Amino acid sequence: MSFSVAVAGASGYAGGELLRLLDAHPDLDIRTVTAHSNAGQRLGSVQPHLRSLADRVLVDTTPETLAGHDVVFLALPHGKSGEVTAHLDASTLVVDCGADHRLVNDEDWAAFYGGEYYGAWDYGVPELPIEAGRKQRERLVGATRIAAPGCNASTVALSLAPGVAAGVIEPTDIVSVLAVGPSGAGKSLKLNLLASEILGSANPYAVGGTHRHIPEIAQSLKAAGAGDVSISFTPVLVPMSRGILATSTARIVPGTSASDVRQAWESAYAGERFVELLPEGEFPRTADVIGANVALMGLAIDEAAGRAVVVTAVDNLTKGTAGAAIQSSNIALGIDESTGLSVNGVAP
Amino acid sequence: MSFSVAVAGASGYAGGELLRLLDAHPDLDIRTVTAHSNAGQRLGSVQPHLRSLADRVLVDTTPETLAGHDVVFLALPHGKSGEVTAHLDASTLVVDCGADHRLVNDEDWAAFYGGEYYGAWDYGVPELPIEAGRKQRERLVGATRIAAPGCNASTVALSLAPGVAAGVIEPTDIVSVLAVGPSGAGKSLKLNLLASEILGSANPYAVGGTHRHIPEIAQSLKAAGAGDVSISFTPVLVPMSRGILATSTARIVPGTSASDVRQAWESAYAGERFVELLPEGEFPRTADVIGANVALMGLAIDEAAGRAVVVTAVDNLTKGTAGAAIQSSNIALGIDESTGLSVNGVAP
Amino acid sequence: MSFSVAVAGASGYAGGELLRLLDAHPDLDIRTVTAHSNAGQRLGSVQPHLRSLADRVLVDTTPETLAGHDVVFLALPHGKSGEVTAHLDASTLVVDCGADHRLVNDEDWAAFYGGEYYGAWDYGVPELPIEAGRKQRERLVGATRIAAPGCNASTVALSLAPGVAAGVIEPTDIVSVLAVGPSGAGKSLKLNLLASEILGSANPYAVGGTHRHIPEIAQSLKAAGAGDVSISFTPVLVPMSRGILATSTARIVPGTSASDVRQAWESAYAGERFVELLPEGEFPRTADVIGANVALMGLAIDEAAGRAVVVTAVDNLTKGTAGAAIQSSNIALGIDESTGLSVNGVAP
Amino acid sequence: MSFSVAVAGASGYAGGELLRLLDAHPDLDIRTVTAHSNAGQRLGSVQPHLRSLADRVLVDTTPETLAGHDVVFLALPHGKSGEVTAHLDASTLVVDCGADHRLVNDEDWAAFYGGEYYGAWDYGVPELPIEAGRKQRERLVGATRIAAPGCNASTVALSLAPGVAAGVIEPTDIVSVLAVGPSGAGKSLKLNLLASEILGSANPYAVGGTHRHIPEIAQSLKAAGAGDVSISFTPVLVPMSRGILATSTARIVPGTSASDVRQAWESAYAGERFVELLPEGEFPRTADVIGANVALMGLAIDEAAGRAVVVTAVDNLTKGTAGAAIQSSNIALGIDESTGLSVNGVAP
Repeated sequence: MSFSVAVAGASGYAGGELLRLLDAHPDLDIRTVTAHSNAGQRLGSVQPHLRSLADRVLVDTTPETLAGHDVVFLALPHGKSGEVTAHLDASTLVVDCGADHRLVNDEDWAAFYGGEYYGAWDYGVPELPIEAGRKQRERLVGATRIAAPGCNASTVALSLAPGVAAGVIEPTDIVSVLAVGPSGAGKSLKLNLLASEILGSANPYAVGGTHRHIPEIAQSLKAAGAGDVSISFTPVLVPMSRGILATSTARIVPGTSASDVRQAWESAYAGERFVELLPEGEFPRTADVIGANVALMGLAIDEAAGRAVVVTAVDNLTKGTAGAAIQSSNIALGIDESTGLSVNGVAP
Repeated sequence: MSFSVAVAGASGYAGGELLRLLDAHPDLDIRTVTAHSNAGQRLGSVQPHLRSLADRVLVDTTPETLAGHDVVFLALPHGKSGEVTAHLDASTLVVDCGADHRLVNDEDWAAFYGGEYYGAWDYGVPELPIEAGRKQRERLVGATRIAAPGCNASTVALSLAPGVAAGVIEPTDIVSVLAVGPSGAGKSLKLNLLASEILGSANPYAVGGTHRHIPEIAQSLKAAGAGDVSISFTPVLVPMSRGILATSTARIVPGTSASDVRQAWESAYAGERFVELLPEGEFPRTADVIGANVALMGLAIDEAAGRAVVVTAVDNLTKGTAGAAIQSSNIALGIDESTGLSVNGVAP
Repeated sequence: MSFSVAVAGASGYAGGELLRLLDAHPDLDIRTVTAHSNAGQRLGSVQPHLRSLADRVLVDTTPETLAGHDVVFLALPHGKSGEVTAHLDASTLVVDCGADHRLVNDEDWAAFYGGEYYGAWDYGVPELPIEAGRKQRERLVGATRIAAPGCNASTVALSLAPGVAAGVIEPTDIVSVLAVGPSGAGKSLKLNLLASEILGSANPYAVGGTHRHIPEIAQSLKAAGAGDVSISFTPVLVPMSRGILATSTARIVPGTSASDVRQAWESAYAGERFVELLPEGEFPRTADVIGANVALMGLAIDEAAGRAVVVTAVDNLTKGTAGAAIQSSNIALGIDESTGLSVNGVAP
Repeated sequence: MSFSVAVAGASGYAGGELLRLLDAHPDLDIRTVTAHSNAGQRLGSVQPHLRSLADRVLVDTTPETLAGHDVVFLALPHGKSGEVTAHLDASTLVVDCGADHRLVNDEDWAAFYGGEYYGAWDYGVPELPIEAGRKQRERLVGATRIAAPGCNASTVALSLAPGVAAGVIEPTDIVSVLAVGPSGAGKSLKLNLLASEILGSANPYAVGGTHRHIPEIAQSLKAAGAGDVSISFTPVLVPMSRGILATSTARIVPGTSASDVRQAWESAYAGERFVELLPEGEFPRTADVIGANVALMGLAIDEAAGRAVVVTAVDNLTKGTAGAAIQSSNIALGIDESTGLSVNGVAP
């Protein structure tokens, strides 16, 4: 089976990762690659690591160039997906890697993004526990509009949802601190993203509850069964191009045994190929997941602190974005969920 | 005024930083440099960045080579300082950069280090609030035995002690996550410290409450007025040779206004040269403190999460270790506290 | 078609990369993984990035554990392959990723390595021009003993062999300077490979003509038609885990036009999938080849200096070692040369 | 003695390093700091690592704000110094850290820079051998207009000038390849300077003889006695914020002994504090010179290749720019040449 694919925003980092994965996907066929300011250029000069696609030429991102494909992946700046999608056929599978369709609540959208709100699409994190022992995967079957997750948001949500769903941790005083690479911020010419600013340094940003992924995490944990959610969330840019290492802690519900806590995660992710709980005492490094569509997770019970500590490593561009988009598309299109996706990282 | 100085363990990273700072200190005169396996070598081949001292020769670390100096800095592996000090004159100022004399409680020592316990010395973090509006500085005046702090421990203690002392944050559910560079682990031949393992990766360790700096933080916060202390502490190795970026959060005592919280830190560090609270909305990067004897701190109040978030940047080798040692020595010796120490980092 | 495979030395960096590539290879089936000090451990704890193989257990490297496979890849320390191979069946395809069988000249072996000399095997760089317009590929068809190349050596040889074979550059005054990542040195506990020593620094080594890859380069250029070869070769460790960026220059034969020079490289690598000359004015970055079995090359003619400058990027572990081993095996086994190998890098 | 100082372009990387060094200089007093787009801002928000100057406010770069100082340091984009200087008093010491006044030959200016040519000033590399056993230092005594060198240019010129001056190496077929950090390119918003592009990668640029520092090197070597100069020069961006590691090779004049070659460098730099030849067999790392006003050099004789290989490490912002500017100013102002400058790097 072969589905024709267009990638909009193919000159950016998420677009490049989509192309890298799609090129190795046996059932998805890259037909069209679009860009804005880079339209007209060869992919070889814009994404020089994609040798197999070097001679493809970027065309302008318009309703016309995107029309007529089975699947359209949008890797556009926030706020651009809504207008583009309006012109696409309802039967086309559209997967948005931007934020436009992630939030189910228009007040969250107004508070954290602003601008016109286009409504939520099915959320592209198949492994997320939702109510009644079900998983988000179910909702993606046959979907035609999918919102790929925010990379930090899905990492933290996957880290804690099992404990929330099982009622073994409290969702009301979560603390997450993330070491993140700059590629998550995209190919943007900003002073704080210059190599000289980031090499040899750890740089916090969005400190104090202002990061846009906070409401996205909260809604995922609510979907997993939480009532009120409170999260202190601090991302720290560190000198690695890719990767997220999220350290998330939550208070253990009093009276819960350590083995019950661990059991919550084990049962939530048993049988999952792309979310893996490591053996007790092992914790992941971001190096282990570079280029892989996998979230690796280690869980510790800190009895003295009364907290569960979950450390999760994700490649922000793969499992965090492009891999999640393709995995979700596989489900939506009815092909094997793992097609074209590897769990093995490129290390060291 | 000139004091003669010996540095024991001069071939390691902390020893090297001591020498770098001492070489620029007008009142401290490097007389003797000692090492263990590197004894007999020129400093030029062991610490090639110290050109002004390149022709000094490392001698063996023995009671004899260390005797007869006004000041002895010990930068030895944990467990080695006790025996060495037994042979040093009581009037000699001895500053230990290892852990042997930091913990006031022998049970903490037994639980986190083990081996013979040699007792606590005056703790070398002058700016730490202690009871009754006083500071640790007072105790260092005229001291002859000083324990330089653990770099992570002093960073977190300085981050939170003002709020604890002022009663505006709760010390019972602290969460600290630190991005740290590998030089804090010393010049040790361990697989997890190889460049190939650390480049491009964020690597957690001592997850779940096992890090040795935890009791040291707790005792500092108790000295600042806390009763029970509970801290979830997770360090993450990131690819920068030096630096600690500690993100520490604590619940705000209900009913406390944001300005009262901020006021606690402002008044605690007003007039301090080497601990600085940045203006509201500014947060430090580790790049800003490389080579500087300064702890830079940013404070945010996350009202939604009910937590104060303190982000502090410290160079683990300078303000975290060698700078703290020299600053404390300045106080002990009765010379100006800031002699030979810079607040300016080497950036970018 | 399926061939059974053993990987000896599976706990090291080259071994890990072999496994990563083999796992994705449709015709090669990983049957046995061996190690020395790590025997008995799960791959999951030694190579944590290889999730699909996490439950495999390393067995001891012995003639018995390696016997009975169609293909044996050796990723052992230099000097270990000879004795191991003596016990392997003559019909088994043995591919050595160490240096033991690369040098055709026992005097070179004695001068640069020393110890017992076991003789040269077919050299695993299929694209290398050899005499009479032929390529090294021919010699690999049906081979049962293959020496995978030294990563730096093959990078420089591929850079210059086209010009040498075409007679447009002089092989007698070559200068090559390489920026290399530390993974090329293997997982060895050496002080100069510690992260603290390499982060933020560029560190030369083997300066002045002592690097072991020099005779290997020379013999490849001689195979391409050079008489005398002289090369000044300097590697520089830089803070990236993988990658080689080789800048190689040679004097242009007087009277040769720039287009004739360029033509030599274009015709040498036309039709090659895994060695690519970039369009005029483009030069490769190591980021573009990470994880890819490809050598990317840019060529400049510096008329003022009278030199051709070739800049080549290679992933030392992939095209430099494990990818070359598998590509050569594909040829030897009579399957499509590109099976299981990607030309696309993981970037950024 | 105290001289009043203005720094123009104080918001950039070179400007920041000037301020860091000037703040520690006992005889130079920072009176005025100017900028263009950052005028009006506190230094604390633009150069957050300079805590001692955090409350200084940047004023606009105009003839009026720069007037009335004893010394004016210009750290402006290329092409901006000429017009600014026209308004400054002839007796003011003006030190340009830009390229405007480095080249003695207007044809070189036209070929490599273009735009109006303002003429050469005294070149700020005191240790450079010039004709008849003299050094460039002489020309700086009492100078009022000084051109601080290009960082790559002075590094290569210092590497080879001793051999050229002594007639032991040939200046007609030099090859230099440099590993350089991105801070040398300034705080410019360019895609190729983004952290995501540079982390984990080695990126060549200006390949094939187009780099602007080439004529500057040539003129320095001619000043040292060379007739014709030919140099193949390739810079490679590597992931370290600061530092240059230049590997420079030149053919040894036939018949010259190894000891005569070495003697040329030893005698050229004997007694120099800021240019140091390391003992035989030792080579420098850039880590060793970070923040230091020193060029460290290692020399190897590659007899097989017939070439001398000089590896030199320089911090591009210190000895490469700001340190050279201050060292030269010290000479011009008649104060001790080493005032305010350290030879010790910040490592690891």
